[in-house]
Amino acid sequence: MKREALMQAVQMRMSEKRFKHVLGVEETAVALAERFGASPEKASIAALTHDYAKERSDEEFQLAIEQGSYSNKSELLKYGNAIWHGVVGADFVAHELQITDQEILSAIRLHTTGGAEMSLLDKIIYVADYIEPGRNFPGVEDARVIAFSDLDQAVAFETKHTLAHLIESETPVYPKTIETYNRWVVGIE
Amino acid sequence: MKREALMQAVQMRMSEKRFKHVLGVEETAVALAERFGASPEKASIAALTHDYAKERSDEEFQLAIEQGSYSNKSELLKYGNAIWHGVVGADFVAHELQITDQEILSAIRLHTTGGAEMSLLDKIIYVADYIEPGRNFPGVEDARVIAFSDLDQAVAFETKHTLAHLIESETPVYPKTIETYNRWVVGIE
Repeated sequence: MKREALMQAVQMRMSEKRFKHVLGVEETAVALAERFGASPEKASIAALTHDYAKERSDEEFQLAIEQGSYSNKSELLKYGNAIWHGVVGADFVAHELQITDQEILSAIRLHTTGGAEMSLLDKIIYVADYIEPGRNFPGVEDARVIAFSDLDQAVAFETKHTLAHLIESETPVYPKTIETYNRWVVGIE
Repeated sequence: MKREALMQAVQMRMSEKRFKHVLGVEETAVALAERFGASPEKASIAALTHDYAKERSDEEFQLAIEQGSYSNKSELLKYGNAIWHGVVGADFVAHELQITDQEILSAIRLHTTGGAEMSLLDKIIYVADYIEPGRNFPGVEDARVIAFSDLDQAVAFETKHTLAHLIESETPVYPKTIETYNRWVVGIE
């Protein structure tokens, strides 16, 4: 699918506000790809599709989990859209948009939780989602500076601050997020 | 082993400061047991022995993990004394002090991390360790009031604040701590 067609398919599935966020992530992801030597084309596709499934209903995600091949179904079902739209959303992207590139699908899958193991593209999408121009929270300017200087440090910065915010607000923490924290913030290998 | 003999065996293994902490945990654990209807005797034994292994060397813990029957050896080896002295320390207590009561050993095993499932005694030792009279940190007075009113709330309070502190200080988070958080702070079952 060419970029224009992909954009249209994505736009159909979300609010104007979210689509603007998606375009911001794309712009940032492509810039990070150029900065760090990843494929700008893959960065563009992964960014455009990373939130493709975010406006699906809980019921649709629950059905996909029950019918899918997830190793931790009962665990996964305890979480909600915040986790599902990446982990399960990647499968919607694969099936509905015929995207088969595993690097792109991995970046979508990990974009919210990160992971102990992350490819360059995984890191780019994870970080771009956090720092795109529409983001506006205390610390985002620091995150932007770090991102274009040291991507691993940006992963650490984002993970630490996101996790602190989740705990402060008593929001569920998906176990994979702790794997990301222990690897990138603490440095446990 | 009678209380006096147990106290002596424990005292031999630790600094004067830590032994004072242990006696503070015992006093608090017995008071919580009386308040909530647990066995004061078991609370006393679990409290006296909860830090029994805390001053063992890393090498001794590593050997015990390698030779023991832990399901997650390679994962466990990545952590350190903060995790080992409870999870592995319970086995030192069992072997060296001939304590076979599984309720007591479970309370020792979980006293640092907590768990998604905790018995009344597990909660008592977890909370007593946090609020004993020698503890002095911002919020400890609140924790003491909550503990004697609602033990589950005290588990939640302690877990949330401990986790926030671990992240702020970029300290490793043992995955089980997140299970405790998701169960007792967030309420995921």
